[in-house]
Amino acid sequence: MSSPALAVSRRNRRTPYTDRIETLGVQGYSIVNHTLLPKAFGRTVEEEYWHLRSSVQLWDVSCQRQVEVRGPEAAYLVQMMTPRDLGSAVVGQCLYAPLIDDKAGLINDPVILKRAEDWYWLSIADSDVLLWAKGLALGLGIDVAVTEPDVSPLAVQGPRAEDLVAAVFGDAVQNLAYFRFGLFDFLDRQLVVARSGYSKQGGFEIYLDDSSLGTELWDALWSAGQGLDVMPGCPNLIERIEGGLLSYGNEMTRSNNPLEINLDRFCALDGRIDYIGRPALEDISRNGPAQRSRGVVFDGGPCPACGSPWPVYAAGRPVGYVTSAIWSPRLKRNVALGMIQTGFWATGQSVSVHSADGIERSGSVQAMPL
Amino acid sequence: MSSPALAVSRRNRRTPYTDRIETLGVQGYSIVNHTLLPKAFGRTVEEEYWHLRSSVQLWDVSCQRQVEVRGPEAAYLVQMMTPRDLGSAVVGQCLYAPLIDDKAGLINDPVILKRAEDWYWLSIADSDVLLWAKGLALGLGIDVAVTEPDVSPLAVQGPRAEDLVAAVFGDAVQNLAYFRFGLFDFLDRQLVVARSGYSKQGGFEIYLDDSSLGTELWDALWSAGQGLDVMPGCPNLIERIEGGLLSYGNEMTRSNNPLEINLDRFCALDGRIDYIGRPALEDISRNGPAQRSRGVVFDGGPCPACGSPWPVYAAGRPVGYVTSAIWSPRLKRNVALGMIQTGFWATGQSVSVHSADGIERSGSVQAMPL
Repeated sequence: MSSPALAVSRRNRRTPYTDRIETLGVQGYSIVNHTLLPKAFGRTVEEEYWHLRSSVQLWDVSCQRQVEVRGPEAAYLVQMMTPRDLGSAVVGQCLYAPLIDDKAGLINDPVILKRAEDWYWLSIADSDVLLWAKGLALGLGIDVAVTEPDVSPLAVQGPRAEDLVAAVFGDAVQNLAYFRFGLFDFLDRQLVVARSGYSKQGGFEIYLDDSSLGTELWDALWSAGQGLDVMPGCPNLIERIEGGLLSYGNEMTRSNNPLEINLDRFCALDGRIDYIGRPALEDISRNGPAQRSRGVVFDGGPCPACGSPWPVYAAGRPVGYVTSAIWSPRLKRNVALGMIQTGFWATGQSVSVHSADGIERSGSVQAMPL
Repeated sequence: MSSPALAVSRRNRRTPYTDRIETLGVQGYSIVNHTLLPKAFGRTVEEEYWHLRSSVQLWDVSCQRQVEVRGPEAAYLVQMMTPRDLGSAVVGQCLYAPLIDDKAGLINDPVILKRAEDWYWLSIADSDVLLWAKGLALGLGIDVAVTEPDVSPLAVQGPRAEDLVAAVFGDAVQNLAYFRFGLFDFLDRQLVVARSGYSKQGGFEIYLDDSSLGTELWDALWSAGQGLDVMPGCPNLIERIEGGLLSYGNEMTRSNNPLEINLDRFCALDGRIDYIGRPALEDISRNGPAQRSRGVVFDGGPCPACGSPWPVYAAGRPVGYVTSAIWSPRLKRNVALGMIQTGFWATGQSVSVHSADGIERSGSVQAMPL
């Protein structure tokens, strides 16, 4: 039972790139936002890790659905949804932002693209932010349209990503700063291209806004990458954990608040802006969070996949849990992300990780990135 | 690439029954509400179909998450979310109900359990109704608590389900009417047991409200079923299509309204109750829906799995699409569910189905069940 299959249905939506992904021999998926996320191409996670760190990969991240908030009061609704002060955000900026509910529980952690003063895209992780935004807008009587537009991001990640993207979209993409986007010509359209992505190896995300051009976009990038050792890929678990990139649903759920995941810098706690959950978040801040996201490294040989939280012990008692874990071929240890209680989250704290295979593994708490 | 694997992560949540499901050799999953739905146990869909029609199966449908709406204004919020008139609903009743947005687009189609005058469970299909309900409650200032309680439904389906459930919960379950629930003793708890389920073969759903008892509940049912040819199972695609059981995300999305899926009887259109989307739904009703859900049967040998809608043609032009399809060993034809335009949805209408394998298959529109 090492590799259960994924059942096929329309409900788990195909993307504009799925035909090409299949041709390239995809062997596994995850599901994010009711959409296929390709996860395996017949190479090991280690092989894909080394390749991502040295070359360039194309990732079908169409599952990063956009929640479009547009209209006279768009800025007001988006600000109500996040404790991050968006007052100084400029058009062309990408902003990582926690979304919280009235208890300060995390609803999602999207990248917000400010497309115009009255037009935002929330590029979301795995929860139906559309329903949350629509419910709020309707209930509060806010004058906006909340929709899921036909937008399917394609990520180009790795140290050679800039060469590849420049070959297709022109050298001007080289001038994009980190977490900024611009409009670049493709066929008869202009596409949003951002310097961003879910790795620490550099790269871009192309927000294709016409599904019918999926194959053309894939092929253009694939062709341009033939001299650059391009491969299909996906967010890499080793690289993501080493880089300290948290994942909604894995490292955080609605049970967590933004301070627990170390987003203090994105939480306006001085009353200068209003947002849903502000009183709850201010309360939590006064006492300090009871736990925080931390890296954990541990021994005992390659660990199994982490399908549910593993207890972490210190001084003979439970002090947290690990939520994602894998063997790092570079560090020659298991690397993990988890939540560690106050008093035990200092770098170097000795811990014991109880992995699902029944092994107690000695390790330590570490700052991120690992 | 016939069976891509599903990647393991905490985000795709395990259930209280997953340990037992794994022991029984699960070989495939789908993902519903960020939760594992076991889909294959080493037998063909046909074998499971015949077994479901003759014996009894245990289905881990924990993915049918409950959205609990509780508090002084619970009845008001739930009524605002559905065009079905809940005014005469009684405690102990299950009510299938479309949820719609302000455009009358379908948000979900849960079974609503009325647990008390101020306490509802919405047993949901695959969308985050929790966020919709929370957003509305917060925006409208409705005095309710909206939560996802620790409730994991286990379905017992098939003609021998009553014998099995009675063996564990006592003969009193035999008195439950269809779509009614009661509280029945299990260990030191009382569990909600409903006569309901996602098949037309009869059966029950047990709403376990304590994850720590998952293995005990599974084992009690499994033991009681040893003389009844009990097997693990899951919603069966052949049986579901033949029975005309629609699936949210497959047969309907937010692009559809409740009249299109033939829920006219659950749509109060005379103004006697208020709910979100009423003006939009009344507008649609005045003109009549442009398309309706229909069964389709067609020839050409066993069809492939339907991963995205297949066009349906009549009189040389597109008149709809098929969204779920499979070979029926009983009818010796392919059976399907889809959406057919007005003028072409009459029973017996000749059509041509263009399946993903490139074959044009002749068939006809049919009423449901098939």
